[in-house]
Amino acid sequence: MRNMAAQLEIICIGNELLIGKVLNTNAQYLAKRSTSLGIFVKRITVAEDNVNEIASVISEALQRKTRFIITTGGLGPTFDDKTLEGIAKALNCKLAVNEKALRMVKEKYEAYVKAGRMEKAELTPPRVKMATLPENAEPLPNPVGTAPGVIISFKDSVIIALPGVPPEMEAIFEESVVPLLKKEAGKVAFFERSIYADNIMESTLAPLIDKIMHDNPYIYIKSHPKGAEKRPHMEIHFSTTAEDLEIGEKNLEKGIVQLSELIRKSGGKVTLQKED
Amino acid sequence: MRNMAAQLEIICIGNELLIGKVLNTNAQYLAKRSTSLGIFVKRITVAEDNVNEIASVISEALQRKTRFIITTGGLGPTFDDKTLEGIAKALNCKLAVNEKALRMVKEKYEAYVKAGRMEKAELTPPRVKMATLPENAEPLPNPVGTAPGVIISFKDSVIIALPGVPPEMEAIFEESVVPLLKKEAGKVAFFERSIYADNIMESTLAPLIDKIMHDNPYIYIKSHPKGAEKRPHMEIHFSTTAEDLEIGEKNLEKGIVQLSELIRKSGGKVTLQKED
Repeated sequence: MRNMAAQLEIICIGNELLIGKVLNTNAQYLAKRSTSLGIFVKRITVAEDNVNEIASVISEALQRKTRFIITTGGLGPTFDDKTLEGIAKALNCKLAVNEKALRMVKEKYEAYVKAGRMEKAELTPPRVKMATLPENAEPLPNPVGTAPGVIISFKDSVIIALPGVPPEMEAIFEESVVPLLKKEAGKVAFFERSIYADNIMESTLAPLIDKIMHDNPYIYIKSHPKGAEKRPHMEIHFSTTAEDLEIGEKNLEKGIVQLSELIRKSGGKVTLQKED
Repeated sequence: MRNMAAQLEIICIGNELLIGKVLNTNAQYLAKRSTSLGIFVKRITVAEDNVNEIASVISEALQRKTRFIITTGGLGPTFDDKTLEGIAKALNCKLAVNEKALRMVKEKYEAYVKAGRMEKAELTPPRVKMATLPENAEPLPNPVGTAPGVIISFKDSVIIALPGVPPEMEAIFEESVVPLLKKEAGKVAFFERSIYADNIMESTLAPLIDKIMHDNPYIYIKSHPKGAEKRPHMEIHFSTTAEDLEIGEKNLEKGIVQLSELIRKSGGKVTLQKED
């Protein structure tokens, strides 16, 4: 039932993710928040700080006619912050200093001088770089850092570029992107619940889940083995998308009741709460 | 200098990652370990539990002539474990019960019965599913779980499918995949070090890093802002790939000494150790 929702792809840009130096918490944050708003996260890609690679990843997402493409990382002042250059290449458009973005960056540095964090607010080339956007792009205010976010429409897609520093990414997402996603999702919302099963192996559980998913095509059920080898313990996660709170909850409840009964009949134990 | 190394793509399969329920620690583990072995992790993709989507992601990686493609997730007994079906579709080959894999699965269940974890070791369809591999594939023993890993060569690429449960993924990777990657990497190894800078903004640091990277094309330098807004604190990460320990260390050292000097001249403070 997720396919009734608008599709989103998340593209995280940064060599630090590809060498495993940094755990990709940004992807999880965006995936969780967007899903909860009723948006269908279709794919997550991590790409290098490399213009051609960024352009390829963006082009591929556009070819899939993805409604929303959110990138993280590569918006800063340094040499290897190449996201906007990559987006411009994918869209075959030019980069130019955006006056609105330049004003945002300038105000940030003036505030830093005022706060005694630096001596001069001059707009050096690395600082102007943060305000150099693809044509037709609009900057999104960054409430907690310097580099603005960027939004640009292309055919039926909307590309949104956010910084890689998590508090900055989250602040711009919450302030400027959430209202857009909410509007797109309309009444569609995501519902989820988990139950826990003991004394049943995943391979015994599998056909039971298949049966319940077959009987309830609007819910999605996934088992997650949690226990150590000696004691099988399974989280069973139910999710659905619905336009109505009551319907969403009712659909989940129906699946949970039916599956719990099958598990008990097979000698398993069902718990509704997480064990500690 | 990473491009002297063999390329690897990581493909993580699972709706739980796309709804943000699970943090993708598998990708970080594989990225970090493979990088440390001298392999170049080129891209990470997270895809749905959907045969067509898995087949697309695999086909795309094959088209990029990626030397190693490692997947995680979707090898279990349940309905939505679709990785092997997706790989078979991408390779345009059939799935068939693999006798070696079936023996591995059977031995696991017999051991579970012996340990009193279950009553019967019978090979039900969901259990046989875990031993149903693409033609020409070989199973990789799973030292801590039931579903074997899978390895299959296709043209110049090697596809390796690992389970999604982290301890199982890690165990198969360490036992069966690390030796392969080591052999491929040969003498190539990855070297990294970080220094920390205070009292300097990222936009002031940017042109200094550019200069050092220009003067030392064999090293890669990336700044990571760490401080809160009030006090800029920067981690500066240096990395390189070399065939010789001494050369690798010497190259990093040279870049660190040169950049530290430039930072101090700009009024910044350099620390070699992480602050707590």
